[in-house]
Amino acid sequence: MGKDQPADVDQQARRLSRRALLTGGAVGAGLGALLGGAGGVAGGYALAERDRASEPGYDPATTPALNPAAEGPGFGGEALPCHGAHQAGITTVPATHVRHIAYTLRPETDRDAIARMFRILTGDIEALTAGVAPLADPEPELAERPARLTITVGVGPGLVDRVDRAKRPAWLAPLPAFTLDKLGGGFDGGDLLITVQADDQLPVAHAARMLHRDLDRFGEVAWVQQGFRQARGAEAAGATMRNLMGQVDGTVNPKPEDADFDPLIWIDTADGQPWLAGGSAFVLRRIRMELDTWDRVDRPGREQTIGRTLSDGAALSDPKGGEHTPADFAAKNALGLPIISSAAHIRRATSTDPNERIVRRAVNYDDGHEAGLLFGCFQRDPLTQFVPIQQRLDEADLLNEWVTHTGSAVFAILPGFRSGETLGAGLTA
Amino acid sequence: MGKDQPADVDQQARRLSRRALLTGGAVGAGLGALLGGAGGVAGGYALAERDRASEPGYDPATTPALNPAAEGPGFGGEALPCHGAHQAGITTVPATHVRHIAYTLRPETDRDAIARMFRILTGDIEALTAGVAPLADPEPELAERPARLTITVGVGPGLVDRVDRAKRPAWLAPLPAFTLDKLGGGFDGGDLLITVQADDQLPVAHAARMLHRDLDRFGEVAWVQQGFRQARGAEAAGATMRNLMGQVDGTVNPKPEDADFDPLIWIDTADGQPWLAGGSAFVLRRIRMELDTWDRVDRPGREQTIGRTLSDGAALSDPKGGEHTPADFAAKNALGLPIISSAAHIRRATSTDPNERIVRRAVNYDDGHEAGLLFGCFQRDPLTQFVPIQQRLDEADLLNEWVTHTGSAVFAILPGFRSGETLGAGLTA
Ligand code: HEM
Ligand code: HEM
Repeated sequence: MGKDQPADVDQQARRLSRRALLTGGAVGAGLGALLGGAGGVAGGYALAERDRASEPGYDPATTPALNPAAEGPGFGGEALPCHGAHQAGITTVPATHVRHIAYTLRPETDRDAIARMFRILTGDIEALTAGVAPLADPEPELAERPARLTITVGVGPGLVDRVDRAKRPAWLAPLPAFTLDKLGGGFDGGDLLITVQADDQLPVAHAARMLHRDLDRFGEVAWVQQGFRQARGAEAAGATMRNLMGQVDGTVNPKPEDADFDPLIWIDTADGQPWLAGGSAFVLRRIRMELDTWDRVDRPGREQTIGRTLSDGAALSDPKGGEHTPADFAAKNALGLPIISSAAHIRRATSTDPNERIVRRAVNYDDGHEAGLLFGCFQRDPLTQFVPIQQRLDEADLLNEWVTHTGSAVFAILPGFRSGETLGAGLTA
Repeated sequence: MGKDQPADVDQQARRLSRRALLTGGAVGAGLGALLGGAGGVAGGYALAERDRASEPGYDPATTPALNPAAEGPGFGGEALPCHGAHQAGITTVPATHVRHIAYTLRPETDRDAIARMFRILTGDIEALTAGVAPLADPEPELAERPARLTITVGVGPGLVDRVDRAKRPAWLAPLPAFTLDKLGGGFDGGDLLITVQADDQLPVAHAARMLHRDLDRFGEVAWVQQGFRQARGAEAAGATMRNLMGQVDGTVNPKPEDADFDPLIWIDTADGQPWLAGGSAFVLRRIRMELDTWDRVDRPGREQTIGRTLSDGAALSDPKGGEHTPADFAAKNALGLPIISSAAHIRRATSTDPNERIVRRAVNYDDGHEAGLLFGCFQRDPLTQFVPIQQRLDEADLLNEWVTHTGSAVFAILPGFRSGETLGAGLTA
């Protein structure tokens, strides 16, 4: 809350502006007029800024939605805080629906415009994730049920170069080519990444649209990739997801509660780009699955491909040990052969170097014509974490017969921001 | 259960064939071999038929999944019965995710092939909706969590003509053209409709793929349209969905418990096509929304467009009356003007003839590039139910400024089937 303003004044101010909107009163009518013409977008921006300015200490992350109709049963009303040392949506419990949207900046979007864009994004994110419609949002009812909405922002090489080439870390560039890559299908690169996640597709669609209204003048959509995991409530809480090959996917993954988690994922000042301290590096690979041929492999063959059972994801070295018994890569069968094949996916993907690990966050995609995995991972430096792993997989991985990487992008995930701060301010300052 | 077989024999038979599959034993290996070559599909078919034949009385709809791992918390394990006088997925509580898939039959798919296709579909539907993997399903774990999966089958004009032109009802044809239609975008018509619905996207994707494996040799995918409503558990049970314009959508809709419901929706023998008795007629319209211009209208303007409030869907004639107080179309304001505009969507859509009603079942779509409504409706005869309503809307509806019909299809929804019966048998007999 603002230092000099008691909490209830803040609240009243918000209630007032909000009620004006809801009842279609003066503000509502003004909005219609403002948004009616070419000045619409600028009008929306002005209002959003004014809204923020008039409520200095307002922290939407800790304030419940105001409209009583938005409360009530169901998880739709749940809101996650967007403020903190790191952005939301990175270590938060994975959501059911994920939409990654990449923008290409317009030629005229220079450093100042980028700073302006970050300010607008900040206001939008604070409002939308809290279930509070940004003032210019004409569908407040859609905003009011965020269902754990998070919006995570990353920047690509092109955006950083426009601000200052010297601020671009070496890894913020297209990944080195892997021999099996089949890129070029329209899902590579991007200047700006917006990742929208929620347990309900409606707030994802609405938030993406509200953000697009504001981002439209700064950039064009380069690509959109939409993915899902099992629905919230369909499985036991905390169950590992299944991918479309039927595998339990995500078992061995660094967890926020692990003692050595933070240095794996969070960039710090020692990394040479102070504006990124508290941020992370995100790699997104679109990986198509050849499910028709995968289906033709018998069950033992499919289990050997990964090195884990299909039934519950137990390592083949101890198939009755359950999902979380560590794989024993040294285990041999009666013939003296390794139980987990030398080219099994988990053997090739695992690292003996504890620093060479990534935090995976994948979701399934299936548009009815093509299916696969939107493989996303966070790390401190893709060149020393993702790349050596993917090089091993590219070289030899039984899975390669049924998966093809068709899209690739790297983004610097901006550090978190606190109430009153602006996302990305360190970059444009 | 089969007349001459005690229940436990049935159960044992199933457990046995299932265990063989799960452990990758003899049957699994055989499957791999069978599916490995060109004979794969035929092999899958043979096995599925054999499976059914060996279990005459088995009713998957009333039998829980066998794999104990599939039970446990979460709604993923919930199965809906697929057997009955009508197909499932028509009056069942709407699911979160809906995928409509239309096929164009291959030139060689004649009446006999269609009969064969229906037999295969029957087995697949019985297994998949019950959470039991069809025998040739290589990912039984994905099948085991159906999350209220339903699979509803309809046939287009072309399919019926191939069987017998005389069996095609007059309404089973492209709809009359409406002046505002912008069709031709690849979402029109189709010979076969498969509608897959569930509260989780994973079983929808898996079921669609398993069905496609079997349908592939009979037809090619003409189009796929995927939609969603609010996630299960996000809202109070029974809450009316919101569409992407922010409106409460689905308030005034005939309900199965209404005394006059059945004759509105179910075709009966008196309609002249006995093979369709117990079936229905389905109209699917893909309707794009122009949300950017919609946003520029102020709130009162948007409410007048429909004739209902945005906050809770109350009719404007009694905005405090809540969603379910009937609209009073005669109500006037102080100036003597109708409160619900003469061109408001609900005034144009409502019918004075109680037989001229449809059962709407719409979902939102949004692929990140285009958004709108997959408007589906069931009725006994589209020519006397959907068409006059749509003619009125086409002629004058305030909503028309922001919606465009870009796809249109009509299907005869096959009557239901009971255990031991075959879907569509009346058509091909
Ligand atoms: C469609 C492509 C892929 C599929 C289907 C897939 C599937 C799986 C599965 C089923 C597991 C075992 C369970 C688990 O620990 O999650 C696994 C483990 C793993 N995968 Fe993948 N994966 C894919 C691509 C990748 C890629 C591109 C990378 C990174 C370059 C990767 C890195 C890993 C790692 C690090 C592990 C854990 C290995 C360990 O046990 O230490 N995977 N993957
Ligand atoms: C994107 C296009 C459409 C949108 C956004 C839309 C939206 C709505 C909304 C918000 C309502 C009021 C709440 C309710 O009763 O559900 C409504 C009512 C209705 N709509 Fe639509 N609709 C659309 C297209 C259609 C079409 C194509 C038809 C049929 C030809 C139709 C038929 C009806 C009917 C029969 C009602 C109930 C009218 C009454 O109160 O008796 N709608 N629609």
